[in-house]
Amino acid sequence: MIIMETSATPEQIAHVIEEIERHELRADVSRGEFRSIIGLVGDERKIPFDSFAILPGVKEVMRVERPYKLVSREYGRFFENPHKYRKIKVGNVTIGGSEPIFIAGPCAVESKTQLFRIAKEVKKAGAHILRGGIFKPRSSVHSFQGLGAINRERAEESLNWLRQAGDMYEMPVITEVRGEAHVDLMADYVDILQIGARNMYDQDLLTKVARKKKPVLLKRHFGASIEELLSFAEYIAAEGNKDIVLCERGILPLGKGREYTRYTLDLAAIPAIQKETYLPIIADPSHGTGRRDLIFNMSCAAIAAGAVGLMIEAHYDPTEALVDAKQAITSDELKETINACQKIHKLMQSSTTKTKATPDEKVKG
Amino acid sequence: MIIMETSATPEQIAHVIEEIERHELRADVSRGEFRSIIGLVGDERKIPFDSFAILPGVKEVMRVERPYKLVSREYGRFFENPHKYRKIKVGNVTIGGSEPIFIAGPCAVESKTQLFRIAKEVKKAGAHILRGGIFKPRSSVHSFQGLGAINRERAEESLNWLRQAGDMYEMPVITEVRGEAHVDLMADYVDILQIGARNMYDQDLLTKVARKKKPVLLKRHFGASIEELLSFAEYIAAEGNKDIVLCERGILPLGKGREYTRYTLDLAAIPAIQKETYLPIIADPSHGTGRRDLIFNMSCAAIAAGAVGLMIEAHYDPTEALVDAKQAITSDELKETINACQKIHKLMQSSTTKTKATPDEKVKG
Amino acid sequence: MIIMETSATPEQIAHVIEEIERHELRADVSRGEFRSIIGLVGDERKIPFDSFAILPGVKEVMRVERPYKLVSREYGRFFENPHKYRKIKVGNVTIGGSEPIFIAGPCAVESKTQLFRIAKEVKKAGAHILRGGIFKPRSSVHSFQGLGAINRERAEESLNWLRQAGDMYEMPVITEVRGEAHVDLMADYVDILQIGARNMYDQDLLTKVARKKKPVLLKRHFGASIEELLSFAEYIAAEGNKDIVLCERGILPLGKGREYTRYTLDLAAIPAIQKETYLPIIADPSHGTGRRDLIFNMSCAAIAAGAVGLMIEAHYDPTEALVDAKQAITSDELKETINACQKIHKLMQSSTTKTKATPDEKVKG
Amino acid sequence: MIIMETSATPEQIAHVIEEIERHELRADVSRGEFRSIIGLVGDERKIPFDSFAILPGVKEVMRVERPYKLVSREYGRFFENPHKYRKIKVGNVTIGGSEPIFIAGPCAVESKTQLFRIAKEVKKAGAHILRGGIFKPRSSVHSFQGLGAINRERAEESLNWLRQAGDMYEMPVITEVRGEAHVDLMADYVDILQIGARNMYDQDLLTKVARKKKPVLLKRHFGASIEELLSFAEYIAAEGNKDIVLCERGILPLGKGREYTRYTLDLAAIPAIQKETYLPIIADPSHGTGRRDLIFNMSCAAIAAGAVGLMIEAHYDPTEALVDAKQAITSDELKETINACQKIHKLMQSSTTKTKATPDEKVKG
Repeated sequence: MIIMETSATPEQIAHVIEEIERHELRADVSRGEFRSIIGLVGDERKIPFDSFAILPGVKEVMRVERPYKLVSREYGRFFENPHKYRKIKVGNVTIGGSEPIFIAGPCAVESKTQLFRIAKEVKKAGAHILRGGIFKPRSSVHSFQGLGAINRERAEESLNWLRQAGDMYEMPVITEVRGEAHVDLMADYVDILQIGARNMYDQDLLTKVARKKKPVLLKRHFGASIEELLSFAEYIAAEGNKDIVLCERGILPLGKGREYTRYTLDLAAIPAIQKETYLPIIADPSHGTGRRDLIFNMSCAAIAAGAVGLMIEAHYDPTEALVDAKQAITSDELKETINACQKIHKLMQSSTTKTKATPDEKVKG
Repeated sequence: MIIMETSATPEQIAHVIEEIERHELRADVSRGEFRSIIGLVGDERKIPFDSFAILPGVKEVMRVERPYKLVSREYGRFFENPHKYRKIKVGNVTIGGSEPIFIAGPCAVESKTQLFRIAKEVKKAGAHILRGGIFKPRSSVHSFQGLGAINRERAEESLNWLRQAGDMYEMPVITEVRGEAHVDLMADYVDILQIGARNMYDQDLLTKVARKKKPVLLKRHFGASIEELLSFAEYIAAEGNKDIVLCERGILPLGKGREYTRYTLDLAAIPAIQKETYLPIIADPSHGTGRRDLIFNMSCAAIAAGAVGLMIEAHYDPTEALVDAKQAITSDELKETINACQKIHKLMQSSTTKTKATPDEKVKG
Repeated sequence: MIIMETSATPEQIAHVIEEIERHELRADVSRGEFRSIIGLVGDERKIPFDSFAILPGVKEVMRVERPYKLVSREYGRFFENPHKYRKIKVGNVTIGGSEPIFIAGPCAVESKTQLFRIAKEVKKAGAHILRGGIFKPRSSVHSFQGLGAINRERAEESLNWLRQAGDMYEMPVITEVRGEAHVDLMADYVDILQIGARNMYDQDLLTKVARKKKPVLLKRHFGASIEELLSFAEYIAAEGNKDIVLCERGILPLGKGREYTRYTLDLAAIPAIQKETYLPIIADPSHGTGRRDLIFNMSCAAIAAGAVGLMIEAHYDPTEALVDAKQAITSDELKETINACQKIHKLMQSSTTKTKATPDEKVKG
Repeated sequence: MIIMETSATPEQIAHVIEEIERHELRADVSRGEFRSIIGLVGDERKIPFDSFAILPGVKEVMRVERPYKLVSREYGRFFENPHKYRKIKVGNVTIGGSEPIFIAGPCAVESKTQLFRIAKEVKKAGAHILRGGIFKPRSSVHSFQGLGAINRERAEESLNWLRQAGDMYEMPVITEVRGEAHVDLMADYVDILQIGARNMYDQDLLTKVARKKKPVLLKRHFGASIEELLSFAEYIAAEGNKDIVLCERGILPLGKGREYTRYTLDLAAIPAIQKETYLPIIADPSHGTGRRDLIFNMSCAAIAAGAVGLMIEAHYDPTEALVDAKQAITSDELKETINACQKIHKLMQSSTTKTKATPDEKVKG
C-alpha cells in the first residue's frame, strides 16, 4: 500500500504506477478526501519497498500481509468513512446508507404475469430492489433450471421482463449470473450482478463480472470462512470495482442439523466482517433457513446483528412456486417484516455503546 | 401419552400408573387446566396400547415417535399455553414471562471482593440473575479450574459468597455443576443448576441434577443437533422436573472460522426450537462469539430471534479476569445492551405476523 | 428409465427418443450386453409413464427418484458389471481396471525444465498419468495463478510442454480447467480434463467440459455431500459422457482441526460412493491432508478403503515449489508409496468377505 | 519440564518435587533409561524457572507451551522410544507392540448366553480383548440403557459375566464407564476402563478413572479437535497414569453427510496424532461409519493409516442386537477383517519411507 503526499501531482502518481507495472504488478488507485492511495495487486514480495519509499510524491509505503487488502478497513480508511460502510448507489437506492435496503422477489422468474404481480406486491410492501432468477443453479440436472436455461430467446425475454418490471415499479433489478457465458447478456439488462454462493470461488467469473463496472452482490459460499469471502471479494476489487455488497446466506449445518434448518445462518459473521472491511453486508434469511416460518424472526435478528439490508424471497402464493416454495413468504408477511426491521435498524443506529459493531479497534476472539 | 377424561378420579390415575409400572416403564403425570395427561418414560413398544385405551378414566392413548416427548409442544399443549413458553419462577424472577431476563456476572468467582463488586454493578445495570463459576470446565489441566477445584473448603466458601451476593443484591444465583460429586453441595447454595455445554451428554449428571427439583439451565453442546438438545432435556423431564431453561451458546465453526468467532452462534435454532418445545430458551453471546466487541449486536440479534433472555459475562475490568477475559463486557456496556434488548423484545412481542416464531403449526425446511 | 426389449429395433429406439423429446426431456441411450436402456434427462414428472410403457419395443418403464440416475448402479447394472467399476481407458491406461492407477506430477507447471524433470522421475517411480496445473485456482488474487493466467501465449506454451512431457514419457496428461473460457484450448492438449473441488458446483463448466467427449476427473467440493458429488457428476453424464472419475480430496475440518490437517480426508466416502455408482473413485492425499509426512499412510489407507487410484503431488525438491510446497513428496517417496499401495490393492482384491465394499445390496447407516 | 542429571540422587529429586509443591503445582516424575524427568501439573507461570535451574541435580529446565505436555512426544522422548508408541500391557496382550490388537464383542451385554456365545466366537476369530457395554449412553431416555442401568444387582451380575467370559476365553475385558458413580464398581471387574466419546470432556470422570491405575481407553469426542483429545488425555496423565489408549471413532459429518455414514471417520488424525504423542491409537470403524458393509474396508484403511488396533462390534446375529444392530458384523466377517488387517499391518511395518508416520520431525500443514 503506497500512501501519496497530499501535494502529489498526477505525474508523480503516474510514475509510481509505472514503477509498479514494471515489477509485473497492477496498481489500484483510490482517491481519498485528502490524498491518493495506491494498492498493489499481485505478489508484493516482488517489489523493493525501500526504493518505492523514496519516489517523488510518496509519503509512506506499508506492507499488508493478508490475502484481502483492497477491501480491508485498513486500506479503506483513507477514502471511506472509518466508522461506516461504503455507500453503493444503484438508481435511487443507496446500499450502506442510513436506511436498510430490502431486495425481494420470486426465487425464479416463471412468467411475465407472475413477475409483474410479485413486483407490484413487493414494491407496495416496501421493497427497494427487485430480484428474480433467470438461470437457477440447481443440485439436480433433472430440476427446472430457470427460463434462461431453455434457450437464448427465453433468456433475453425473461431478462426483458425483469427490466420492465423494475422500471414500471421503480426498483433497480438484480439477478444471479451462473456462468461466464451469460455475463455480457445480463449486464445489458440488470443493475446489480449477483454471484451465488455456489460460484463464490469461481475467480474467472468474478473477474469477468467485475469488469462490467456495475455493483456486484457476492454471496458467501456455505463452506467459506470469512477470510475466504473477503479474499474472493478482493478478486472483484482488483479489477477496480469496489461496489461490492457481501451477503451472508448460511453455512453448512453440522450433523443432524439439516432436519430443522437448511443451513446455519451465521449472523455473528456480520459484525465480524464489518470490522474487517468497509463493504456493506446484507443477509438472506430465505436461503439461510429454508423455512418460511423462521423468516420474520431471522430478518429482525440479521438487522440487529448489523446487516444493512436483506434479500427475501416473496411470492403471492408460495406453495405455487416452482423453486424453493418452502422458503418464500407472502407480500403481507414481507410488509410486516420490513416494518419491524426498519424499527430495529433505527434502534440499533441510535445506540452508542462501544461494544457495538461499528468499526473501531478490533478485538479478536 | 395417555390423555385422561376430565372426570377421571385420582384412583383411576393411580391405576393407570400402576399398569405402566407393571410394564417396567415410568409415568410422568401432568395436570392441565381441564385434565390430566400421563407421559411414558421408557420404551413404549413394551406397552399394549389397546388394553390401556379401555382402562377406566382413559380418554385417549397416543403414540409419540420422537426421542423427546415430555418436553414436546405436542405433549405440553395439554398443560401449557400452546402459544407461549413455560413460565419458570425462581425467586421474584420469571423466565419465559413477559419480560426478557438477563443473567450476568463473572465467568469465574475469583474473590469475595470481585464477586460483590460485580454483583452490585450488574444489578444496577439491570440484570436479574447472578452467575459465577465455582468449578470451571477447562480444556487444559494446567489452567485455573475455579476456586471450587482447590478443595472442599474453598468450594463451600465461594458458594457462600455467591449466595450472599445474590441475597444482598436481590438476585437469584446460578452456577455450573461440573461433576456428579458436587450436585448435593451446589443444590444447597444456588437457585438454578447449570449444565455446561461440555456436560450436555452426561446423562447420569442430568438425572442427578434433575432430582434436586430446582430449575436447570441446560446448555446446548457445541456439537449437538436440536434433536439431541431436546432429547437430553428429556432426561431431566423424565425425573419429573420440567423447569428447564435451554441455552444456545454456539456450535462448532467450520474450517478457518475460529479466527473470527470462537463458535458459530446458531440463532435460527432459537425459533426452530420454540416450534418443538414449550421450554423457554435463552442465548449466551459471550461464549457464542468469544469476542467482547460482538456482544452488543449479538445480544440484540438473539432477542430478535426470539430468545426470552440472555446470559452475559460481565466484569468491572474485563482484562483482569482470570478466565475468558476476551469475552466479558463492562457494566456500562451491559446496561446499554439490556436497554436495547428490552426495546427489541417489546417490539417483537407487538408483532402479529404469522411468520413470527410463535408455536403455530410447524413448517419444516 | 426405459428398458427396451432385447429385440427392440433401432427404429423403435428412435421412436422412444422422439417421444421423450416431444415432452421436452432429453434421452440418454446406453447399450448393455443384451439390451438398450434409455435414461431421461429432465423432470420425469412431465412424462406420462403409462403411455410410454406400451410403445413398441419397450419392456419396462421405471421411475428413479434420486437426483442422480444416469450414474447410479441401479441404471448402470444394465450395461456395467454390477460388481465392478466402469473401466475408463485413456491411452494405455485403464482407470477402474485390475491395477491401481497413480496420477503424479507438480502442483503447478513452473518451467519446461521443472516439468520434464518431474515427469521423468514420476514415470520411473511408477506413475501412470502426468498431472500439472496451468491455471491454478488460488484463494488470494495476490498469489501466483499459474503460467496460464499470465496470457494466452504462456498458456499454450505450458500446455504444449505438458503434452510433450506426456508423449516423451508415455503418460496420458491431465490438467485442471478453471473457467469456461479455457475449455476449448485445454481439450486440444490434454487427455483428461479435471474439474477442481472449488468448481464442482459450476454446472455450466461441467456441461461445457462434458461435451468435449474426453474423460473428466471430478473432485468433490470440500463442502459437498456424497449426494451432491453424484448429482453434479450427473450433469456430465447428462451430456452423454460417462467417462467420469470421481475424486475424494478432503472435506472441511471442524473447529480447530485445521492446525493438524488442512482438510478431513473422508475415506469412508469411498466405499459408500461405490455402493451408489459404477463410476471409479480415486483419492488425493496431497490436498486432503496438506502434509507431506502423512501422504504415505493416507495413500495406503485410501487404497485399503477401496480407491482405484491416487493423485499425488510430487517434486524433485518440494521446498522449491511455488505452490503447495508443504504437501509434495519426492520421487523416491512416491516410489515407495506406489509399491506399498500396489501390494495393498492386491491384498484387498483377493478378499472375498461380504462386508467388502463391492456393490452388493446396500445397508444404510 | 525439569530434566535431572543422570547422577541425580533420590534426595535431589525429592527436593525438586518439594519445591514444585511449594509453588502449588504437582510433579509428574518419569524415569527414563538414563535419567529422571519431572513434569509440572498446573500453571507453569507460577514457577520461577531460573531458581529451579540451579537446584542441585537439575540439568535443564524447559517450558512447554501447549495444553498437553505429559503426553507429548517432546516429554516422552526421555522415557519412551522416540520412534514407537508406549507399550501398554494388559494381561497377555500388549497394545502398541509389534502386533495389531483387536477388541471385539457386543455393543451391549444382553444376557449371559449372548455374551458367552459372542466371546467364544470372537476369540476364535482372532480377537484379543473382549468388549461389552453394561451402561449404554443413549440419546433417548426412552431407549434401552444397558443392563447396568436397571439396578445395582443387574450391574454387578453383568459385570461378573463379562469377567467370567474374559477369563474363560482368555481375553482381558473392557467396558465403558458412563458416570462417576460407577467407577469403583467397574474397576473391580474389568481390565481396561473406557471413556466414551460423549464423556471425553468430563474431566471429573477422567480424573476419577485415572486414579484406578488401570489402562484407560479414551475415545475422541465427535466434536473434538486433536488438540482437545490430547488435552483431555492430559487429565489422566496428570494423575500419574500414562497407560492411555486413544481411539478415533468418527467426527461430526457436514450437511447431508449423515445419510451415507453416521460420522466421518477421521483417519488422517491417526498419523497426525502419532506425531504429537507416544500414546498408542486405535480406531472404531463400527461407530465411525454406522454401516456394517463398510467395516471391512475401513478397518483395513485404519490399520494402513497407522492404527495399532481396532475396536469392532460383533454379534452372532447382528439383526438381533438391541443396540446398534446396523453396525455389527458376524464372527466370520470379523475373522476375515482381522486376517486382512494383520497382513496390512505387517506390510506397513516393513516400509521404511521417510513419509511414513513414524514420529520423526513434525511438518505441519
